[in-house]
Amino acid sequence: MANGTYVFKASSIEESTGSAYPDAYQYVTKDRYVRRLTDPAHLTNYAVNLVRLAPGGQSSCRHAHSKQDEFVYMMEGELVLNTDAGRQTVTVGDCVGFPAGTGDAHHFVNETDQDASFLVIGDRSSNDTVAYPDDDMAAKLDADGKLIITHKDGSPY
Amino acid sequence: MANGTYVFKASSIEESTGSAYPDAYQYVTKDRYVRRLTDPAHLTNYAVNLVRLAPGGQSSCRHAHSKQDEFVYMMEGELVLNTDAGRQTVTVGDCVGFPAGTGDAHHFVNETDQDASFLVIGDRSSNDTVAYPDDDMAAKLDADGKLIITHKDGSPY
Repeated sequence: MANGTYVFKASSIEESTGSAYPDAYQYVTKDRYVRRLTDPAHLTNYAVNLVRLAPGGQSSCRHAHSKQDEFVYMMEGELVLNTDAGRQTVTVGDCVGFPAGTGDAHHFVNETDQDASFLVIGDRSSNDTVAYPDDDMAAKLDADGKLIITHKDGSPY
Repeated sequence: MANGTYVFKASSIEESTGSAYPDAYQYVTKDRYVRRLTDPAHLTNYAVNLVRLAPGGQSSCRHAHSKQDEFVYMMEGELVLNTDAGRQTVTVGDCVGFPAGTGDAHHFVNETDQDASFLVIGDRSSNDTVAYPDDDMAAKLDADGKLIITHKDGSPY
């Protein structure tokens, strides 16, 4: 559709694998498949991804954003959400809000033998930092909005 | 779940009716039912709504944002999307991006005899204005982020 409106099937977007993590943590997201919907929708103010976790898959290392709100809508299957409060199972139709700045770190793990999928939205607030309480990583956005991941002590990977 | 993560079923959120439109335009959204997910998720950087349009329902007057990106993910049923380019049918799994500032105005209409639902995301960029090419309305955000709707010539309703 012309004139500034962009329509497409989510299923038409190729799934991406891999992550921005250092080599030592690439294994975490090896069963994660991400359809990046933001660019085909021509949006710049926030990001929208459709994420599929195969059995055994993890969404990310457990992390917390300082400035960026994150929102998840469960689309398919069942996942375990791990936060500072412990484990919780989420299923289709569940919404999860991760407001910025609470320090409560999260990730999702697929402990079932079926795929599970969710939509995730994140804004692009500047000066965001990401804490990874369980792993030797720390991250911050550089001036171009690119995520720079270092060791916890700030030394480069 | 404590500690800054908020989990809830979308279906647990009560549907809202009505709109911020003047009385003369309230009829437009009379068959629109909105689950407002932003506050229960404790988010402030953008808004997420789950919108159900009953048969005959419309999402809004046809409109375009100057600063705020809008994104729609079709969850259920079938809708007609009207833009400056004309009519297009969208169904489950379709994504629609409405980048800010194009001037291309849109709304959705349910021309079927079944409910249709979509998730819609919008950011909260300041100084947003909204154009309504088909109707005698113009809108802008005030300093508190509240949408103020006037006649096209700026006179109050």
